Amino acid sequence: MALARIARHGGYRRSFGAISNTATERYQLCGGESAHKCHSPFSGNVTGCGNLFSIKKAEHISFGSRGMRVTPQHNFPHAQIAVEESDSEQESPQYPTLEATKPGEKPRVVVLGSGWAACRFLKGLDTKIYDVVCISPRNHMVFTPLLASTCVGTLEFRSVAEPVSRIQTALAKDPNSYFFLASCSEVDTDKHEVYCETIGDGGLSREPYRFKVAYDKLVIASGAEPLTFGIKGVKDHAFFLREVTHAQEIRKKLLLNLMLSENPGTSEEEKERLLHCVVIGGGPTGVEFSGELSDFIMRDVHQRYAHVKNYIRVTLIEANEILSSFDDGLRQYATKHLTKVGVRLVRGVVKEVHPNKIILSDGSDVPYGLLVWSTGVGPSEFVKSLNLPKSPGGRIGVDEWLRVPSIEDVFALGDCAGFLEQTGRPVLPALAQVAEREGKFLVELFNRFGKNGGKAFSAKDIALGEPFVYKHLGSMASVGRYKALVDLRQSKDTKGISFAGFISWLIWRSAYLTRVLSWRNRFYVAVNWGTTLVFGRDNTRIG
Amino acid sequence: MALARIARHGGYRRSFGAISNTATERYQLCGGESAHKCHSPFSGNVTGCGNLFSIKKAEHISFGSRGMRVTPQHNFPHAQIAVEESDSEQESPQYPTLEATKPGEKPRVVVLGSGWAACRFLKGLDTKIYDVVCISPRNHMVFTPLLASTCVGTLEFRSVAEPVSRIQTALAKDPNSYFFLASCSEVDTDKHEVYCETIGDGGLSREPYRFKVAYDKLVIASGAEPLTFGIKGVKDHAFFLREVTHAQEIRKKLLLNLMLSENPGTSEEEKERLLHCVVIGGGPTGVEFSGELSDFIMRDVHQRYAHVKNYIRVTLIEANEILSSFDDGLRQYATKHLTKVGVRLVRGVVKEVHPNKIILSDGSDVPYGLLVWSTGVGPSEFVKSLNLPKSPGGRIGVDEWLRVPSIEDVFALGDCAGFLEQTGRPVLPALAQVAEREGKFLVELFNRFGKNGGKAFSAKDIALGEPFVYKHLGSMASVGRYKALVDLRQSKDTKGISFAGFISWLIWRSAYLTRVLSWRNRFYVAVNWGTTLVFGRDNTRIG
Repeated sequence: MALARIARHGGYRRSFGAISNTATERYQLCGGESAHKCHSPFSGNVTGCGNLFSIKKAEHISFGSRGMRVTPQHNFPHAQIAVEESDSEQESPQYPTLEATKPGEKPRVVVLGSGWAACRFLKGLDTKIYDVVCISPRNHMVFTPLLASTCVGTLEFRSVAEPVSRIQTALAKDPNSYFFLASCSEVDTDKHEVYCETIGDGGLSREPYRFKVAYDKLVIASGAEPLTFGIKGVKDHAFFLREVTHAQEIRKKLLLNLMLSENPGTSEEEKERLLHCVVIGGGPTGVEFSGELSDFIMRDVHQRYAHVKNYIRVTLIEANEILSSFDDGLRQYATKHLTKVGVRLVRGVVKEVHPNKIILSDGSDVPYGLLVWSTGVGPSEFVKSLNLPKSPGGRIGVDEWLRVPSIEDVFALGDCAGFLEQTGRPVLPALAQVAEREGKFLVELFNRFGKNGGKAFSAKDIALGEPFVYKHLGSMASVGRYKALVDLRQSKDTKGISFAGFISWLIWRSAYLTRVLSWRNRFYVAVNWGTTLVFGRDNTRIG
Repeated sequence: MALARIARHGGYRRSFGAISNTATERYQLCGGESAHKCHSPFSGNVTGCGNLFSIKKAEHISFGSRGMRVTPQHNFPHAQIAVEESDSEQESPQYPTLEATKPGEKPRVVVLGSGWAACRFLKGLDTKIYDVVCISPRNHMVFTPLLASTCVGTLEFRSVAEPVSRIQTALAKDPNSYFFLASCSEVDTDKHEVYCETIGDGGLSREPYRFKVAYDKLVIASGAEPLTFGIKGVKDHAFFLREVTHAQEIRKKLLLNLMLSENPGTSEEEKERLLHCVVIGGGPTGVEFSGELSDFIMRDVHQRYAHVKNYIRVTLIEANEILSSFDDGLRQYATKHLTKVGVRLVRGVVKEVHPNKIILSDGSDVPYGLLVWSTGVGPSEFVKSLNLPKSPGGRIGVDEWLRVPSIEDVFALGDCAGFLEQTGRPVLPALAQVAEREGKFLVELFNRFGKNGGKAFSAKDIALGEPFVYKHLGSMASVGRYKALVDLRQSKDTKGISFAGFISWLIWRSAYLTRVLSWRNRFYVAVNWGTTLVFGRDNTRIG
């Protein structure tokens, strides 16, 4: 879809304009959706669909002239003509472009995303060697492990968000480094360019505003999307818990329901529905959110919503076991503790989601007032649309150095990337810990080869050093009421230390406090925790 | 409009159902829009339109039976029948009602609004004497003098918002006190009832959700609305600065424009437009916002948006003089200071507002990226729709004790109220200071007469004591860069102390710090100021 839109505006037309209309359409299909659909028109020139993104003959292109106007003619013999024809037609607007770097200029790293992987990479990048461009639809990183706490006012929203330009100050200051608030819609690995569309709200004179950015190295860290398993109504009625805006919406809804249930004449049934908070998915996010909710209910709702305090309930629905990646003992501890603080644990599979109720696969109805969906993540539409090798599960396939093999100068990491089957390694779980470790590994690699191999097409014969090895440092999850689980086993099948309770909770808090990126936010998180302890949670409903 | 909708749902039909359809329609016109339109159908029974809101014969109604089902038959002889008829028809849903208090129960004060006047009143109310119901579309009070600081991240949004249930804890805890998140659409002073509509977002099984609340005493403190002078496009394209949500929107827009202007290919002209912040109105709000903006530009934009820092500008447009209520010397100081920090002061009158430019009355265009409108306030649609006596300027007219004369048990204060012409007093300015002083006066009055005169219709012969006298304590405004103005004259024409500069700024800060309502927010405001000083302003753009 994205590519189709781009093509209409002339982005691709210029290179392939000389090929018949049919070919152009096929190309769109191929680039936009799946490479396997494209056959004939290119087969004479290129070695297969994959080659559209391959740079095997890249040494023929000089740095200075790389870009739209110089699509190599030996690959696409009609391309130059196509450009001229297109110029004379002047039929569609051209994209503004951040042109390729010239010889002598610093190489440009383009980073897609602003999550754990992207930000750890950005933070460590040696900006004496590289210019850097970060492209993301949000200008901040979210400290996801503490996001659940913001929904009930334990922490402020801003305390868990860190502006990207603070993480890497070159983005704000260096003359050739930029942060663009935009979504990447397409990658042209052949031309070493990404196509972007600005995130706006009607503020620009021309919208949608599209542009191109040329890269020397591309780091894709655009993350994943919540899995809904195609269940009807999830996207319309459930809240996810991945962004600060999600937490804001959950908070608004929760406080709204608490207030609405006090309305004169509200029936008992309607009160129970409004104040029934249902969480789908028993992973760490679902468990932590349930725990925070029960804390909020115990301490704050009982004090500040005395009229309706007996109606509020939390139900956690999970198809299998909660916290399946944790140690057996911890799992039992969590189950016991959650039940004790009033969270109802239900084994069930959701079939359909309606505005005010969900229907389980056994046919039973569960009326709800607030529905939070946290059943893990899967590849995003953007990743699906990329014509790149894929790992099992549909992520962007990478080798042991996080490179996309056969596609020069493209790297992928974090939730959007996974080891290719041929590496013999398992796809790593979608955890902040994994993403951060990958970001650290890759940026060290970049800083090492940067001086000689930073420019496009120049890192072919550079020694890469040791491959990336992930060592799991353990898992943590808070379950509310000053209790947490700490599981220090390296994997599910190995032995190690695991413990639960108040001491775990102290470890959980202090571990996160030291991991929050900036001193400003460390300070704010500590202040927030302190004031919550002294004054209780804030229940202002803004907006 | 509100009443028309209500009538359709049977609210009024029940009392007036026996009167012909024509009469019902007329009544709707009369109650909903203006009393002066209604004549014939009631003239036989009541003494005039005003009497619909008059309670002269109130002593005939007993407390226990006051309410919908017992509209006094001597006033509307067919009313009882009407009720029966309506019951048998079962044609329209009935309103859920918080019924009138019974003898022996505490009297119920209903407060409309949650601004300065309402919250000062709520804070001081003796809940041993009264039950209290607060009805407002927002659940918090906004500390308006510091709102401008939140737009640029000097202060957090939550630091200037105080939940109503913290100001008056009885609202959350007492069995017969409530906070309702709703808008009041109509007041029936005859029946001592207010009609409300819940603020929702699709969360209720039945929407819109309407209900009624009976009162013993009604305190109207619903505030005012920004004045737009009927200028085309203001409501569509300009931001006001009255609520926390307004400040959030301004912040989002400002940060968005800063980022959008960095897009590749953005023309010089478009950059200048995007980063042109225009403020209309040179009162304290407009001046303080301009000052905050220039601080933000000097310190933060220059550091963190280095690519576009030379494009950002602030223009303050005012038809007359800025800060017209301040001392001449202070005005000159402010003008000089603002000019020095880069705020362009323009004398002009806005004729039209378009999405990307405003047109002044001299025909000149002013392109803008952000437009903030602060030209004062006027009566809200709700106040306009009320069939109550009005002060000059269209506010609810009150006497020296803030009572609405001839309408028993109804009081009005804050920006929605003004002294009636017959009192010989001027309408007080729409200032937090005035509203707060009125709230304090009225709640002391309430606490004094509450034991004997708290119930409906019982305060007729009670001694009220001294009338309300407003003594202006002075005005303050910050102009940015650690400078403020303090004007301690009691009025424009009297002599007194006035000074400007850094010391004024210290006074400004500490005065506000001690006035922020709760210790929690005092602490947060101090912490916010401290971190802004150390780390600079936060530029996370959420949402």
